[in-house]
Amino acid sequence: MSGGGMSGGAVRAPVRARTGFEDGAAFVDGRIVPIGAATISIVDTGFSRSDVTYDVVGVWQGAFFRLDDHLERFESSCRSLRLRLPHTREEMAAILADLVRTAGLRDSYVETICTRGVSRKGVRDPRTFENRFYAYAVPFVWLLPEADAETGMDAVIARTVQRIPTTSVDPTVKNFHWADLTRGLYEAYDRGARYPILLDADGNVTEGAGYNVFALVDGRLLTPASGTLEGITRRTVMELAEREGIPAELVALPEATFRQGAELFATTTAGGVMPITSLDGEPVGDGTVGPVTRRLRELYWEAHADPRYATPVDYGA
Amino acid sequence: MSGGGMSGGAVRAPVRARTGFEDGAAFVDGRIVPIGAATISIVDTGFSRSDVTYDVVGVWQGAFFRLDDHLERFESSCRSLRLRLPHTREEMAAILADLVRTAGLRDSYVETICTRGVSRKGVRDPRTFENRFYAYAVPFVWLLPEADAETGMDAVIARTVQRIPTTSVDPTVKNFHWADLTRGLYEAYDRGARYPILLDADGNVTEGAGYNVFALVDGRLLTPASGTLEGITRRTVMELAEREGIPAELVALPEATFRQGAELFATTTAGGVMPITSLDGEPVGDGTVGPVTRRLRELYWEAHADPRYATPVDYGA
Repeated sequence: MSGGGMSGGAVRAPVRARTGFEDGAAFVDGRIVPIGAATISIVDTGFSRSDVTYDVVGVWQGAFFRLDDHLERFESSCRSLRLRLPHTREEMAAILADLVRTAGLRDSYVETICTRGVSRKGVRDPRTFENRFYAYAVPFVWLLPEADAETGMDAVIARTVQRIPTTSVDPTVKNFHWADLTRGLYEAYDRGARYPILLDADGNVTEGAGYNVFALVDGRLLTPASGTLEGITRRTVMELAEREGIPAELVALPEATFRQGAELFATTTAGGVMPITSLDGEPVGDGTVGPVTRRLRELYWEAHADPRYATPVDYGA
Repeated sequence: MSGGGMSGGAVRAPVRARTGFEDGAAFVDGRIVPIGAATISIVDTGFSRSDVTYDVVGVWQGAFFRLDDHLERFESSCRSLRLRLPHTREEMAAILADLVRTAGLRDSYVETICTRGVSRKGVRDPRTFENRFYAYAVPFVWLLPEADAETGMDAVIARTVQRIPTTSVDPTVKNFHWADLTRGLYEAYDRGARYPILLDADGNVTEGAGYNVFALVDGRLLTPASGTLEGITRRTVMELAEREGIPAELVALPEATFRQGAELFATTTAGGVMPITSLDGEPVGDGTVGPVTRRLRELYWEAHADPRYATPVDYGA
């Protein structure tokens, strides 16, 4: 239980998966199927050209967290790629709730996907393709295993690869172009760690393999202004920090400045606020979870009960 | 028929697709299925992280062209990404021949794919995933429609996007990271053309959306040495040019030098040697197919009958 903020939830009746949906449920071609049966065509350019965007929203203790913000970002990503979503925001919200209910999940990792689709024979003009919407809900995913919530993340600054620059791929449009992040992941594992952080060509910190990063430097929280996803968890943490009187700033973040962090942490929907307790094999501070990180982690989970952020799932009778 | 080199083939008995395989055949999870039924899991990281490599080999007049070279490059790409192919080269060659035979194709576009596979629950270490092999054979794909073989390609130098740099993604490992190329494709269509060519951050020419490019400058054929796929069609054309006494060189190719080309052309398995007759709306040379391009196109198709390059498909009785 990362951060312990989860202990305050009201006791609710247990929910059950529909038979066959115990591992999760997916929305494919207009139908709900078990996650194990959820597939896309091998010739959908969402696969064969990675011409696709996606978003991930969490369900915690029976409620979506910032659902509207996630769907708004998803719609914005689709517009940037000139993908036409076949569903309105309200329709998508209903589909996602249906998936969570079908899978019987109080805590869930819920993904929306829009692909360019399949080219018609001999036609390469992507403007003519029929775009496709997919979604699925599976049990909540912890990017940092729950058992390691106090141990924290063992991070490395990747040396063998740079983050894909914004002049080539827009990182604010959530995408599956992870070859650089995957190279970083391999480097991290090869160096005995698990969490890579990538630099850009100028030596500034960008992000990790699925997470934004923060450094607490001289009492200010710093996180990269560009070259990275505009994370909704990142946004939440910045809002919570400001409320606590801790300045939080989007900056160009040179590696050397990042290394000065008295505390370092990462943020993602798949786990919230995750302490980085070692960097390149050296402890960060005294190698334990710092007080600012701990406080923000608590506040982050408490925010899940805030009615401004929570959209309860109707699990039916 | 691009280039007319195809008229020299011997007359052979017609082949027929197995019922249901008229649009193509795919190898998925160890079985041969119609291309329309070929899918991958929505949670295969080959899709969800574009953690995948592929290759494309052509079948022309009943024979694979440079099959061993394509399979060698595919194996090399897998090694670079630390993907473990579940099949030997001989097994893959047999699978591909089986697909072409099942689809009843004399002329075919044949793709091999290896994905990282599905992560086990809660395990992010990609070194532990079971990698997956897929393949399919469909009717031959012409990147430049056959009807336009003499009209040629209308190309543009992309202004809105740069090619993903080699420091982030290795372009010699054939990959689906096409967001930059797709942005270029949209730009080309928006500018009334069809074929983008992308520059790198230094203003050097790299490649297009699925093709290498060449410029004939002062009697020498120039093509980019880096930042681009090491195309097998490109290699073939360089070998054929040398045989004709035309020097062919891998160079850093600034945009200005490329623009000096008396002839420009592109190369790809999906079409061979394709003349570029206009660039940014202006004619290249006199706007018709140049003599060197024409000669190389003829030689390219003639090479398909060369027993050093051709691997005949056994279509059975």
